[in-house]
Amino acid sequence: MDWIAVDWGTSRLRVWAMADQNDVPLKEARSDRGMGQLTRDDFEPALLDLVGDWLSDQRQTPVIACGMVGSRQGWSEAPYAAVPSEPLAAAMARATTKDQRLRVWIIPGLKQTSPADVMRGEETQIAGFQAMTPDFDGVICLPGTHSKWAHVSAGEVVSFRTFMTGELFACLADATVLRHSVATSGWDETGFSEGLDITLSRPERLASELFSLRASDLLEGTGGAVARARLSGLLIGAELAAAKPYWLGQSVAVIGSEASSAPYLTALRAQGVAPIRVDGSEMSLRGLRAAFETVKDTVP
Amino acid sequence: MDWIAVDWGTSRLRVWAMADQNDVPLKEARSDRGMGQLTRDDFEPALLDLVGDWLSDQRQTPVIACGMVGSRQGWSEAPYAAVPSEPLAAAMARATTKDQRLRVWIIPGLKQTSPADVMRGEETQIAGFQAMTPDFDGVICLPGTHSKWAHVSAGEVVSFRTFMTGELFACLADATVLRHSVATSGWDETGFSEGLDITLSRPERLASELFSLRASDLLEGTGGAVARARLSGLLIGAELAAAKPYWLGQSVAVIGSEASSAPYLTALRAQGVAPIRVDGSEMSLRGLRAAFETVKDTVP
Repeated sequence: MDWIAVDWGTSRLRVWAMADQNDVPLKEARSDRGMGQLTRDDFEPALLDLVGDWLSDQRQTPVIACGMVGSRQGWSEAPYAAVPSEPLAAAMARATTKDQRLRVWIIPGLKQTSPADVMRGEETQIAGFQAMTPDFDGVICLPGTHSKWAHVSAGEVVSFRTFMTGELFACLADATVLRHSVATSGWDETGFSEGLDITLSRPERLASELFSLRASDLLEGTGGAVARARLSGLLIGAELAAAKPYWLGQSVAVIGSEASSAPYLTALRAQGVAPIRVDGSEMSLRGLRAAFETVKDTVP
Repeated sequence: MDWIAVDWGTSRLRVWAMADQNDVPLKEARSDRGMGQLTRDDFEPALLDLVGDWLSDQRQTPVIACGMVGSRQGWSEAPYAAVPSEPLAAAMARATTKDQRLRVWIIPGLKQTSPADVMRGEETQIAGFQAMTPDFDGVICLPGTHSKWAHVSAGEVVSFRTFMTGELFACLADATVLRHSVATSGWDETGFSEGLDITLSRPERLASELFSLRASDLLEGTGGAVARARLSGLLIGAELAAAKPYWLGQSVAVIGSEASSAPYLTALRAQGVAPIRVDGSEMSLRGLRAAFETVKDTVP
């Protein structure tokens, strides 16, 4: 093992043991000790819990981390770089450790002044995608709790926008009156398409269509799986309507897990877009490697 | 005391002791024993806790109730009447009681088949408003957890739509990443107006503007009160954009509390509408009295 790759988000921590010349991780581990539940002094022990056994006493092991670990409430703040910017243009922050076997770098996120927007973690996935397809010029969609759309050109992130679609879905389905009508699993392709069409063509209807999910259930006994797919369609349709300047007539790449990407691929294809999909974890790893390459010669 | 008026919603119970010939309540009481936390057998004791001392052993006291108490999960289901309909056209449901001093009626809600929609409680407020202004022809806006817009003509509710604006505000402000940036109190008129203008003219921007509340805070330190007012403006703007066919060029009455009505009045006035406002509790009472008038001659 030559270095350690770390994806440290709000709610989870993933680590991979990496060899210098090999893209396939030697080992991996994860825990639920995300940034959201840690104070500054908790980060080093949380990392050592997973990687302590991988370390050598003979030398320092480089650790490259991305995600919310670099936020103000994180381990060590890695200030945002302003777009337009290459995704990894800014110098990484260092986190100091008590354990001398570690040498930790944290990748800065990106910020946009107007409209105000920020990302942490996705810039690393974008860098990973660029490492794989250096000539890509177009739009990258990263579905998730906070979905991102980024316009990428000539190696730079030109602009981006964030949509709270995943978090909206969760809070509507779990914490509002819709919880009585929206199932926690199951799917219905027609329900999804209908919801999508409504808000993509008439985005103002989102506000009234939400309660209709409840009313349809009360009056017609609409199934919970249909309501779940329809809610997803309504929210993704609203996102696509707002993000239209991004994807219309563009080359689009979707970076994410199979599950989170599937509805976006369906929706984009229905609009005549032919998106490519790549795996989110793989892009994180590729991006972390690209960041490692910039510092590996500084390691004793 | 001749009868008892009851407004029994999901989260609270309010009761008033009424004289036959007087609109001013003799007494009132309230508790937090809303429909949401009660099983069928809990309703009678919950009511008796508040009104037991008001009852006479010599005769039955009529009780007229509106709200979620008439839902399928309520005390006794009062099936919806379909619009177009006068708000109190359908026969009230009876709830049986062990206590022979009570004689309980429950007002049915209204339903709309397409688009699917339902109301329970607001039909009583609309009836109260009609009792006060019998010639009103126009649109009634009832702000709240689930805001309603109803088109009223020739004494009938012709159509209506529900918007989850209040519940969306609460779930976004309390249960998403916005909780770090949106204050629990405070207000900023400029923030409200800016949010309102964005979504009223470009409703598709709601999806991206939500996360901007968080990003603006991180990048520019926008205050929590400004973010709170702006979030309210964004959501009410989206509601007004969707409800435009209701209010545009119409006489509009807003029925609600002073606090819940204020942002709607501001927003409608900014659009050149001159709404009148009446108090929500007062309209509930007037509507309950109108319902009482239809049955009082049947009471021994």
